[in-house]
Amino acid sequence: MERRQLARQLSAIENGELQVVKTEGLIVAITGPPGVGKSCLVDGILHRLAPKYKVAVLAIDPTSPISGGALLGDRIRLSVLDDAEKSDSIYVRSIATRSSSGSMPSIVSDLANHLLASNFDLVIIETVGAGQSEMRCAAIANRIIVVEGPSRGDGVQAEKAGLLELADLIVVNKSDLEGASKVVNDLTVSLTLTNDAPPIILASATEGVGLDELSEKILSLEERVSSRRARVRQQLLMTHENVLVRNPAFETIIDRMSEEGLSIEDALREFDE
Amino acid sequence: MERRQLARQLSAIENGELQVVKTEGLIVAITGPPGVGKSCLVDGILHRLAPKYKVAVLAIDPTSPISGGALLGDRIRLSVLDDAEKSDSIYVRSIATRSSSGSMPSIVSDLANHLLASNFDLVIIETVGAGQSEMRCAAIANRIIVVEGPSRGDGVQAEKAGLLELADLIVVNKSDLEGASKVVNDLTVSLTLTNDAPPIILASATEGVGLDELSEKILSLEERVSSRRARVRQQLLMTHENVLVRNPAFETIIDRMSEEGLSIEDALREFDE
Repeated sequence: MERRQLARQLSAIENGELQVVKTEGLIVAITGPPGVGKSCLVDGILHRLAPKYKVAVLAIDPTSPISGGALLGDRIRLSVLDDAEKSDSIYVRSIATRSSSGSMPSIVSDLANHLLASNFDLVIIETVGAGQSEMRCAAIANRIIVVEGPSRGDGVQAEKAGLLELADLIVVNKSDLEGASKVVNDLTVSLTLTNDAPPIILASATEGVGLDELSEKILSLEERVSSRRARVRQQLLMTHENVLVRNPAFETIIDRMSEEGLSIEDALREFDE
Repeated sequence: MERRQLARQLSAIENGELQVVKTEGLIVAITGPPGVGKSCLVDGILHRLAPKYKVAVLAIDPTSPISGGALLGDRIRLSVLDDAEKSDSIYVRSIATRSSSGSMPSIVSDLANHLLASNFDLVIIETVGAGQSEMRCAAIANRIIVVEGPSRGDGVQAEKAGLLELADLIVVNKSDLEGASKVVNDLTVSLTLTNDAPPIILASATEGVGLDELSEKILSLEERVSSRRARVRQQLLMTHENVLVRNPAFETIIDRMSEEGLSIEDALREFDE
């Protein structure tokens, strides 16, 4: 398929102008706290999978709730796209989330399914797992990889963010930095308490450590039972929330709550009518 | 009121054995990404407000979804509690959130209201704003202070986490470290685009910078219109979600989705019955 045509179709899906059918295929979310080097890891994976595999990347960028713009300032340019032979089998699209839009994860799901239907072997969803919307975008994947950075002396960030339960695989990145092995130890201790622990890979995207293993694993990741359950849970809560958020009266009702003191109970009653 | 009696009442509230009525009074949430020094700031505020004011602190600790224990490892002991004269007017309670419990924020709301009814002048809710549950705990407050640390070169963390829209005041902590003024600049640029920008205070909890100003401001924080709207929105979504999560069949239905492939649509239909 021609690239420009694909881009037009994806835009139509984003605007709700094109229906998508669910397609079998591999959708892997790569998520984790900000600053752990997810983009570099994705770059390293693409270098190893392309051109043998066709890989699409959906990069979910949190939108500034104040300026409304995407927070793309720190997005790293993928070096793999400079390689003509490889870049032909790669498609990258950035998507700005809007915190006010509850429908974000289902749009991402539609985009991913359309890419699978367009003969991509693998769709990677890269999210910053900081907010609810991003976590739910990750939950639409078939498999989830949680990336963690070296310890900054304040605990395991991914664990605090409630991400670990979603993980089918954990990557501790920046293995060259002090604190990386401490995070692996902390994680291993936490995970000994479960009988369904995700495997842990120590990697360094900048030094190329662990990337061969990761690129191989990503194509045949085993699903953890508890990860599956956590994803299903997120999907159910998301669909339930969409009933409210997609109601045309939603924003007006919030206004009335905020400005006129409409009670929560009365507001929910209005949705039921 | 006797301290031990208060603790017993709060435990009863946590266990759902004691009804609480809503009380007028000041509930301030202090939230922000992990590691920005929220506990130190709270300590500094308590040193300045006690013993003149009676202040209660509810410290919300994310629970490890895997081990089930609270992630208290990095909680800093409040030095103000070593000062007998001041500690008499301070009450601190840690609360472990469970990511599976959607009722957490309403329990925190009940605890805060009970503390106000017990003659506390101010209730501080300290949360790590990483997950949805923590953000919703913050949303039950009357005012929200978002704490940000110095730039680590990867953008404004609080903005990524979707926290800024909730802020009535922003504190950039660790002003002694490189990167703090960069965050203030980045925030100021973001915020020039709004006509309802929260004030920003530069502080250093460890060096005592900005704490007098913060302690004075916390007692009479102005409410931003957009913060009020964001809080009301969170409260509505939370109450709506609780309809599902508190349903006795919730976990069983998730099991059936995860194990038997029950569809989301059929699952939601079962809740409606």
